[in-house]
Amino acid sequence: MKLWQKENTVTSEKIERFTVGRDREMDLHLAEFDVLGNIAHATMLETIGLLTADDLAALKTELKAIYAQIQKGEFVIEEGIEDVHSQVELLLTRKLGDTGKKIHSGRSRNDQVLVDMKLYTRARLFEVVEATEKLFDVLTRKSEEHKNDLLPGYTHLQIAMPSSFGLWFGAYAEGLIDDIIQLNAAYRLANRNPLGSGAGYGSSFPLNRQMTTELLGFEGMHHNVVYAQMSRGRTEQAALSAIASLAATVSRLAMDVCLYNSQNFGFIVLPDDLTTGSSIMPHKKNPDVAELLRAKTNRMKALPMEVTMVLSNLPSGYHRDMQLLKEILMPAFDEILDCLDIAAFMLEHVRVKQNLLDDPKYDLLFSVERVNELVIAGVPFRDAYKQVGAEIGDGTYTAPRELKHSHEGSIGNLQTDAIRQRMEHEIAAFGYEQITTALEALLK
Amino acid sequence: MKLWQKENTVTSEKIERFTVGRDREMDLHLAEFDVLGNIAHATMLETIGLLTADDLAALKTELKAIYAQIQKGEFVIEEGIEDVHSQVELLLTRKLGDTGKKIHSGRSRNDQVLVDMKLYTRARLFEVVEATEKLFDVLTRKSEEHKNDLLPGYTHLQIAMPSSFGLWFGAYAEGLIDDIIQLNAAYRLANRNPLGSGAGYGSSFPLNRQMTTELLGFEGMHHNVVYAQMSRGRTEQAALSAIASLAATVSRLAMDVCLYNSQNFGFIVLPDDLTTGSSIMPHKKNPDVAELLRAKTNRMKALPMEVTMVLSNLPSGYHRDMQLLKEILMPAFDEILDCLDIAAFMLEHVRVKQNLLDDPKYDLLFSVERVNELVIAGVPFRDAYKQVGAEIGDGTYTAPRELKHSHEGSIGNLQTDAIRQRMEHEIAAFGYEQITTALEALLK
Amino acid sequence: MKLWQKENTVTSEKIERFTVGRDREMDLHLAEFDVLGNIAHATMLETIGLLTADDLAALKTELKAIYAQIQKGEFVIEEGIEDVHSQVELLLTRKLGDTGKKIHSGRSRNDQVLVDMKLYTRARLFEVVEATEKLFDVLTRKSEEHKNDLLPGYTHLQIAMPSSFGLWFGAYAEGLIDDIIQLNAAYRLANRNPLGSGAGYGSSFPLNRQMTTELLGFEGMHHNVVYAQMSRGRTEQAALSAIASLAATVSRLAMDVCLYNSQNFGFIVLPDDLTTGSSIMPHKKNPDVAELLRAKTNRMKALPMEVTMVLSNLPSGYHRDMQLLKEILMPAFDEILDCLDIAAFMLEHVRVKQNLLDDPKYDLLFSVERVNELVIAGVPFRDAYKQVGAEIGDGTYTAPRELKHSHEGSIGNLQTDAIRQRMEHEIAAFGYEQITTALEALLK
Amino acid sequence: MKLWQKENTVTSEKIERFTVGRDREMDLHLAEFDVLGNIAHATMLETIGLLTADDLAALKTELKAIYAQIQKGEFVIEEGIEDVHSQVELLLTRKLGDTGKKIHSGRSRNDQVLVDMKLYTRARLFEVVEATEKLFDVLTRKSEEHKNDLLPGYTHLQIAMPSSFGLWFGAYAEGLIDDIIQLNAAYRLANRNPLGSGAGYGSSFPLNRQMTTELLGFEGMHHNVVYAQMSRGRTEQAALSAIASLAATVSRLAMDVCLYNSQNFGFIVLPDDLTTGSSIMPHKKNPDVAELLRAKTNRMKALPMEVTMVLSNLPSGYHRDMQLLKEILMPAFDEILDCLDIAAFMLEHVRVKQNLLDDPKYDLLFSVERVNELVIAGVPFRDAYKQVGAEIGDGTYTAPRELKHSHEGSIGNLQTDAIRQRMEHEIAAFGYEQITTALEALLK
Repeated sequence: MKLWQKENTVTSEKIERFTVGRDREMDLHLAEFDVLGNIAHATMLETIGLLTADDLAALKTELKAIYAQIQKGEFVIEEGIEDVHSQVELLLTRKLGDTGKKIHSGRSRNDQVLVDMKLYTRARLFEVVEATEKLFDVLTRKSEEHKNDLLPGYTHLQIAMPSSFGLWFGAYAEGLIDDIIQLNAAYRLANRNPLGSGAGYGSSFPLNRQMTTELLGFEGMHHNVVYAQMSRGRTEQAALSAIASLAATVSRLAMDVCLYNSQNFGFIVLPDDLTTGSSIMPHKKNPDVAELLRAKTNRMKALPMEVTMVLSNLPSGYHRDMQLLKEILMPAFDEILDCLDIAAFMLEHVRVKQNLLDDPKYDLLFSVERVNELVIAGVPFRDAYKQVGAEIGDGTYTAPRELKHSHEGSIGNLQTDAIRQRMEHEIAAFGYEQITTALEALLK
Repeated sequence: MKLWQKENTVTSEKIERFTVGRDREMDLHLAEFDVLGNIAHATMLETIGLLTADDLAALKTELKAIYAQIQKGEFVIEEGIEDVHSQVELLLTRKLGDTGKKIHSGRSRNDQVLVDMKLYTRARLFEVVEATEKLFDVLTRKSEEHKNDLLPGYTHLQIAMPSSFGLWFGAYAEGLIDDIIQLNAAYRLANRNPLGSGAGYGSSFPLNRQMTTELLGFEGMHHNVVYAQMSRGRTEQAALSAIASLAATVSRLAMDVCLYNSQNFGFIVLPDDLTTGSSIMPHKKNPDVAELLRAKTNRMKALPMEVTMVLSNLPSGYHRDMQLLKEILMPAFDEILDCLDIAAFMLEHVRVKQNLLDDPKYDLLFSVERVNELVIAGVPFRDAYKQVGAEIGDGTYTAPRELKHSHEGSIGNLQTDAIRQRMEHEIAAFGYEQITTALEALLK
Repeated sequence: MKLWQKENTVTSEKIERFTVGRDREMDLHLAEFDVLGNIAHATMLETIGLLTADDLAALKTELKAIYAQIQKGEFVIEEGIEDVHSQVELLLTRKLGDTGKKIHSGRSRNDQVLVDMKLYTRARLFEVVEATEKLFDVLTRKSEEHKNDLLPGYTHLQIAMPSSFGLWFGAYAEGLIDDIIQLNAAYRLANRNPLGSGAGYGSSFPLNRQMTTELLGFEGMHHNVVYAQMSRGRTEQAALSAIASLAATVSRLAMDVCLYNSQNFGFIVLPDDLTTGSSIMPHKKNPDVAELLRAKTNRMKALPMEVTMVLSNLPSGYHRDMQLLKEILMPAFDEILDCLDIAAFMLEHVRVKQNLLDDPKYDLLFSVERVNELVIAGVPFRDAYKQVGAEIGDGTYTAPRELKHSHEGSIGNLQTDAIRQRMEHEIAAFGYEQITTALEALLK
Repeated sequence: MKLWQKENTVTSEKIERFTVGRDREMDLHLAEFDVLGNIAHATMLETIGLLTADDLAALKTELKAIYAQIQKGEFVIEEGIEDVHSQVELLLTRKLGDTGKKIHSGRSRNDQVLVDMKLYTRARLFEVVEATEKLFDVLTRKSEEHKNDLLPGYTHLQIAMPSSFGLWFGAYAEGLIDDIIQLNAAYRLANRNPLGSGAGYGSSFPLNRQMTTELLGFEGMHHNVVYAQMSRGRTEQAALSAIASLAATVSRLAMDVCLYNSQNFGFIVLPDDLTTGSSIMPHKKNPDVAELLRAKTNRMKALPMEVTMVLSNLPSGYHRDMQLLKEILMPAFDEILDCLDIAAFMLEHVRVKQNLLDDPKYDLLFSVERVNELVIAGVPFRDAYKQVGAEIGDGTYTAPRELKHSHEGSIGNLQTDAIRQRMEHEIAAFGYEQITTALEALLK
């Protein structure tokens, strides 16, 4: 049964499969948000006289029952029912008859999909924020723990200057803050109410869109109804761009792990649980987990392109093409959460080698220290640079191994507290508790 | 059980899930090819003394039994078995004991995955070729059928010159030939034997790689063993680029269908089966099938990027990252085949409107005909062009509606036969029957 | 002359050309920012005893002179000088001898490039914000002007419901607000001080990074020095992603213009200045400007991919690869500014057709109005929907052409003021005046 | 002056700059091909009576004079002339008056651009083939030269099995063959005659398209005139995909060079000419050339996406958007040729370190050799694998350093001759000499 189905239409099975695609599977994830949107819409309809107080009471009771069913994992989209919106409406009409049929007044299915997607995306983006914070916590903890464990610093993959594991872990921690900022920009796009935009051209009913905006805890509404519909795709694009940015941070970290774990670097040791053997070489302990983490996060960097491909050069107005965006966006959340979890697990268990810089092959790491000694003794920088170059050339250079880095963010002064404060500040900017409060009120 | 598992390793379930991913599901599609590779490898091992004639006979019998099982859909990868290669080897050792253990001599799992992927990709690319040919057949048939049904031709989305449905259908048919050429380039990359390259550094056994090349019907071998391994990823990339090119042809066709089906163009009518209604607007017949076809094929255009993302800047030598390529490549074949099938179905059933050019709004389509009349009467082209411009300006222009296009590929001379011959020629270049013959011989 | 050149090195011209590339051309755009960074660094060096007060005074005088030269367009990078940083240092040492040589203490060229790029990107992103605001102003003005000019609204490219030019212009205006939010996320990444991070591993001098952060008007610093360097590429990526998002808004607008300008839609008229003719068809007025706008903005959507390609799988630490990012980022600013300017110009001059909905072919646009009439009369929505479907089928449907849309963001209530306020609020969040104030103080 | 300009049109300078863009610069590269196309078209026009024999003779004389001018680098597109096609026609009409005006009969500017682009792309693709062959020659030479210089082979960036510089150089050589195959697929798309397709809808003149096909040395024609126009963009896409594939080969090679040149690997030494120093670290010799080679080739991998972005969802028929493709395609040829040249230069001069495997840290490379010893002695593979694992664990393992790899493509049997023969065979498939012959005949 499809609500829009004309009686004289016989849709062949092949076409059915092609058009419905993975939609019913995807839609299950939207169910809880669909109920929330329904409650908000019904509440508002009652205030403008399109539902009676009794209608509303009955609808709310049923909708809360459906919500409870969803939470218990018992909600299903029945065979032959096209999507979650039809299923919810069907459950309502089964129980309430004509009252159930009234709830679709003043809205369109596009409206419903859109508000569900906004609520869904908003919630899942914040899940990603929380998982990012967990990885951040591991990284800052490890950074502090290993602040005195030195590491060769490279530029151009060439031995450059002394670094430390404190700096290395801390760098990725600070990087995650910038990812949170990108996530916030996407989140703000998701946190706008499209409800009331209908099929993209609004309604002639005197809807109160400000009311549903507040009921659903949105930061504000997409005012223009044509734009509300146009935000479809854009929201997905923004979310996936932010996820891709975060994935890029993780993939670079995984690349470092693979390289540092190579015998030729030998800076870290992965626990056996995180390595696998070879079918042919009995000596192998391969860092498959880090490699797959790298591959999966690298692959995610193509996600925004998928959305771009679908949307490119589509004129304004809804097109069915946009349905496909669900299949691009929704699995991406699971994937990034999985990767963040594994990354945190891996870094928690990685073992750092000590005293790496005692190896004489790293003597040249200290050449700038030697230059600086001369500068402090009064030699202009450019002359000191030349003198040390000559010392290296004629073999008289000796590495001054004592490090004196004290400025903000350097080996001796990691500024972990400042970095942690920034992260807290950026996460607070999401204002997620207010949303939780609003949604809880709606379900009361 | 994993064949490479060291006894002291306890792999947590989380890690297991992360590393195995969708591999076992993907690997089922490789099973038949794994058996073929095993038979070829075993046959060769016997000739260099690493298997006895009895070993080979026993192995071949079992492998053929497994092949039969696969064909019947009864083959499974058992719980706890990591991949198809381990499963096949396990079945052999269960039945044959030590003989089963010998078959892995002179090869590595990388070798197996690689040869399986080559055989798989080669076979599926040819499936795509055959499905493309079917769409081509519909298009050329429709082109001939509607060669006299005129259509406004546009440039810049502006009314330009007369066209016809014959030209329109025929254009997409001819376009598919170029897609076949791209598919062939990918196919040739897949049609090279990597077997014997081991983990990417060959073997110290005196393998006969020419022999397995012939047994498996390959065009030739990847000679250099390091390159054989490096072809991993490249083969996938080439296949997906060719598929993306084909998808682009289909997506453009779908865009035309959506536009021509809009009331503002109104050139074609889609049967009810291929349209859907609206939840709110009772008058709608939306071309959802064409839109989803457009969206799905557009999305596929991002596939080559996914592979690029995974491979970028990986140094030479195998990395586990490459495992992920299976999940990118394998579902893409199903998707493009589905899209080609639906496209053929849609075009078969689309109804073309007639006498479109009788509408006076299309009068200006004939302005070049008027110019040409003057040219034939002796006026230099540039002067005739100006004169007709003036006629249009002052309202004295009348459209000369009789068309005289006779040159190759124009309205009056579609060259369908020449186009069909080219397609046949390009498909013959795949030489797929020889492969079928070789593989049948191997299974005897 | 290159400052790092070892005497025994002879760099061939070919290599020179390959490595320097377009760097000197790009670097000219960094000159003013390089001077600002130099003044801040020198001011700080004096406070930690690495420059005397006299050194600082002399350096500031010269640097301000160079700044003035740049503003007058007289600054050049001399033949044989590798980059802007070398050129500025050369000018200083020419005038001040040893004092000039001292200024490089406690920093590295990576440091300089990075701080220059941050200052440059911050400034240009705000230029983009201002140009976006100009386009926004045209759009909101046009939206108000044409709020009563109705337009067919489409879904699936099918006639759907009544819309208006007020809604259409306003939708793109509101869309630009979301682009501003994306730009802000990128801007915040650019608005962080990397100075003091050296080659990515800090310095053993007791630099005061908080001081240069304030002098240069940054929101804060990149604390971790390894991360400061790692932000190279990320900043470019974020900026280009935001630009790509903005470009996507403009390209969609251009697509609408091309379509609405087609004779088959005929909703708008472009002035002759914005159309071009054909070399062969004397009747043509092609919307080349809109098409090129579409093409250029579409092309820009690939920019983030270019950066991703360069950065993928590079281990941490600086690599020369990052130099290439300048060539990707810097021309993109010119391109998007150009496109925004042309878009504003085009929309300013586009002429809107009136009374479009009087054409009977648009009757069905009002079917939902008819449904709503019945709903208001007490028929449940689903039954009303069926009844109107039947009316359309049997020819008894008549279009109720009076529109009553009054809710927020609908035809009768565009909410232009609310949209304008949001835009002002989002632009204020950049806090750009404080930056201007800080930089002016630095140049005093 | 623009040939299509209507008298009442005043095109503002801003619009002019925006629409013409870099077109005149790009068009200079098309000049020689435009002349060739003109000669072929004129020759054909004479046979169908649209030019007299005298007209043709006069036109040919002038066109050959222009060709000579182009070869001497003296051809310019004059100020105010829009493109190369207008310039050539202008030169003809200046000299020949009305005869010059006649040459545009039966064709459109789209026609001209398209045939020029096909001829240009065909020629430049073959230039790329030749440059690829040069790099191939260096690689095969180096492979033979260093066939006895062993190198650690890695999988998962972990020490795996013995490899050699012979294998490493040879692998990239063989990889280039697959790039040539991809280039050939693109070349075949470029090698099709579109002339006679007009603005995409053919001509009512009785053009002889087979004749121009032969005169211009094309493999065949694009039969369908609508498809001929649709091949615009596809040809560019195919060419850029092939170039991107080649770039990926080079970028991976450059990544290996950067890694092998790191002190932690230390497998190769770059000559001083190919390294640069640091502004702060006096000991540095950075592999900037290899890094920029990597970056530039990586960046090129995004090129096909740029074309895809421009073309996506454009309905059939010419759009001005396609003009932008020139700016994407044409510089790409220069860039890839430059990169191939530098890559060949770098590999020619790289110095390979010897006796690398004598270092005891590489002992485990030989573990499979130890397994194979046991297999040859009769132990089943899986048991031998376990035994060697145990030996490594308890310290009794000794590395059997003598290598016996003899099979095709392994260390002891590089198959360089077979690889060279394949390359020759693939290049011969382009049949480029026949084209040269045809074009020379045309200019006689």
